[in-house]
Amino acid sequence: MPDDPREHHQRPSAQGSRIDPYVGAYAERAKGMVASEVRALFAVASRPEVVSLAGGMPNVGALPLEQIGEIVRQVAVEQGGTALQYGSAQGDPALREQICDVMAMEGIDASADDLIVTVGSQQALDLVTRVFIDPGDVVLAEAPTYVTAINTFAAFQADIVHVTMDDDGVVPEALEESLANLAAAGRRVKFFYTVPTFQNPAGVTLTTERRRRVLEICDRYGLLVLEDNPYGLLRYEGERVRALRADSPGNVIYLGSFSKTFSPGFRIGWALAPPAVRAKLVLAAESAMLSHSSFNQQVVGRYLATYPWQEQIKDFTEMYRARRDAMLSSLEAQMPAGSSWTRPQGGFFVWLTLPEGLDAKAMLPRAVNERVAYVPGTGFYSGDHGHRNMRLSFCYPTPEQIREGVRRLVGVIEGELSLRDTFGSAIAPPGSSADAPTPDLP
Amino acid sequence: MPDDPREHHQRPSAQGSRIDPYVGAYAERAKGMVASEVRALFAVASRPEVVSLAGGMPNVGALPLEQIGEIVRQVAVEQGGTALQYGSAQGDPALREQICDVMAMEGIDASADDLIVTVGSQQALDLVTRVFIDPGDVVLAEAPTYVTAINTFAAFQADIVHVTMDDDGVVPEALEESLANLAAAGRRVKFFYTVPTFQNPAGVTLTTERRRRVLEICDRYGLLVLEDNPYGLLRYEGERVRALRADSPGNVIYLGSFSKTFSPGFRIGWALAPPAVRAKLVLAAESAMLSHSSFNQQVVGRYLATYPWQEQIKDFTEMYRARRDAMLSSLEAQMPAGSSWTRPQGGFFVWLTLPEGLDAKAMLPRAVNERVAYVPGTGFYSGDHGHRNMRLSFCYPTPEQIREGVRRLVGVIEGELSLRDTFGSAIAPPGSSADAPTPDLP
Repeated sequence: MPDDPREHHQRPSAQGSRIDPYVGAYAERAKGMVASEVRALFAVASRPEVVSLAGGMPNVGALPLEQIGEIVRQVAVEQGGTALQYGSAQGDPALREQICDVMAMEGIDASADDLIVTVGSQQALDLVTRVFIDPGDVVLAEAPTYVTAINTFAAFQADIVHVTMDDDGVVPEALEESLANLAAAGRRVKFFYTVPTFQNPAGVTLTTERRRRVLEICDRYGLLVLEDNPYGLLRYEGERVRALRADSPGNVIYLGSFSKTFSPGFRIGWALAPPAVRAKLVLAAESAMLSHSSFNQQVVGRYLATYPWQEQIKDFTEMYRARRDAMLSSLEAQMPAGSSWTRPQGGFFVWLTLPEGLDAKAMLPRAVNERVAYVPGTGFYSGDHGHRNMRLSFCYPTPEQIREGVRRLVGVIEGELSLRDTFGSAIAPPGSSADAPTPDLP
Repeated sequence: MPDDPREHHQRPSAQGSRIDPYVGAYAERAKGMVASEVRALFAVASRPEVVSLAGGMPNVGALPLEQIGEIVRQVAVEQGGTALQYGSAQGDPALREQICDVMAMEGIDASADDLIVTVGSQQALDLVTRVFIDPGDVVLAEAPTYVTAINTFAAFQADIVHVTMDDDGVVPEALEESLANLAAAGRRVKFFYTVPTFQNPAGVTLTTERRRRVLEICDRYGLLVLEDNPYGLLRYEGERVRALRADSPGNVIYLGSFSKTFSPGFRIGWALAPPAVRAKLVLAAESAMLSHSSFNQQVVGRYLATYPWQEQIKDFTEMYRARRDAMLSSLEAQMPAGSSWTRPQGGFFVWLTLPEGLDAKAMLPRAVNERVAYVPGTGFYSGDHGHRNMRLSFCYPTPEQIREGVRRLVGVIEGELSLRDTFGSAIAPPGSSADAPTPDLP
């Protein structure tokens, strides 16, 4: 547009480009909202000939579609007067009672009053962050941690400080050291975000002994724990562990979800929080979306009330165990020396460390070219880490596809190793991978 | 808890109360998140003997439940593989195409690429605010305006500046004067939020001539328009008007919803935005909830594809017109001198001004006692205004209930008038009503 003498105010086109005239008008928090450069690659990776070990999508093909069809029909016909109407921001009271029964399976004794139903547990993450985080506040999180949690914390301008994790989950001494250092530096730490059971992306589980110590440390520092537990009921071996919330009701916000144990298509998750926090979350939810879908809440309620859902979880467990076993045995049989990986007792993910000198992100285009995809480890850190790592998921492909995917992956890695041995270890400059986390789903 | 010598860090209980140990840990933005004091009253007002002219709930009882039951069953059984799975943060591509056809009814020529599906248009409001608002930024809004928009803007610490409105919608001269004053004061104005058609709460519609002038002013000041249009297709008389977006594609973010024309129970709304803004909204949605319900999007898509939805809107229009007529004729016949009200050509709401000396909020407990409820006008302003006003909705009660509700309301007003005439006008101190907006739904 031509200059106009009357235009001397905040016309954004004066500050911005012709491509985005509003570039000068965005909020500070929007500056961190940039699309990942590997997004385009994942579009390619979704082609049918590619074995994707990247996504965290549950295998909904195993669900009983006819029965679910009947359930949703009944909700519309018999409960339409409320199911098709607005609901409350806190969520359907009957469903909240049923969710308490689900949580009891992991040792949690809760009141439905202390619970809010959310659009997946992702929205619960968002609401907690919105209620607690001012720009510059610190969030502690495992290293590595769930990619979209990083995005959410970053969207509210939190500083994420990673805490070391090993095969037994987060290391209590490292947590305590971080807290002491941050306190000495005068930083405001708002909460410790943890996926203690079958962690995403690492697949590891915090041991019972460490759970006790982590809770003790957080209690001593007055630090709120944000426990994210979408996979806890999908255990393939070993004894079920108690949720952190079970042993520290006043100091833990617990996030749960039906996305992995039933279906992500209804977007029903929840947060269980101390009463005063829960009240804030409900007010935040009201301004975020007024109310969640009444229909979907009643569908999940009717599913829990009329379908043998614990049997369904057993079926899922059998299916996913076979897929995990296929992945672990393939890795064991084929991965070259110098690589290592975690051995999850449940959940969806294996965390793989490549031989020295290899870079998982630099290698990804070649892997996709060989028709196998994964998520590079760099996406699971807020800083420049994880170059030698990748997340492999075994939830969606069949055991046969997993074996073929690992075979292809091993071929790519062996190719990289001979390049490394010929040209040295610096195949890709590590700095090139320190960008935004991947857009990969949960 | 007793003091502990090791506790010298950020234990919130040291700052907070025993009721809320985290009171010192909340974000600045959470301080504005307080429950309205009239919330408790609305709980009473939901008793069946009370005629509620308060809520903005559509009459979903008029929907064809058997047919909707068949649609949802088909989506589960025939499309379960995708409907029960995660979707994309931007929303179902097929539904986005269909939404373009719906918007074409109000003159909008749009590409599905520029559209994001949201959890009702409320989430679209939230995402736009999140992307644009830094603390202290100014949002312009009509006086009065939609209560939950006020909450959302306040939740991101915007300053809301109201612009005068009359029976023809917002006053262009007042908009221009506000913009000039704010520019002179060096304030950052991010957008003008408007419900131009059948406004909530005022029921008025911006005239065609004023639409042209408002767009010209905003274009001249480089100000983005946030057009919220949930009621546009529910017109009971007069000619349909073009959406603001229809005549200014590059400068308007348009929000739409199926909540009033189909059902709020599926929570399907949308935002149509210039491409660069749309990209930011999708990233914000990803961190807010990963993706909306695939199931619900496919249900609305199948409803639009297989059901005569334009006929359904005609049926809704007939029904709501009869309710509006019942309200307007009752007000005409019974309201005492000194009161006035708007005459909406569509939508759900009438805005009533009480005779001088009366206070709608102070009067509300007495009205509920007489078994009629409304929303006091003070809720629709960010400052201390609207004491003589109330919003009356005619969407949910039947014509008979509306007539009875107005009869009861007139009785209460007449009682107040005789008190006023006996004791003078200062029945309630106006300052007592300047608190948070009501929790009333749309």
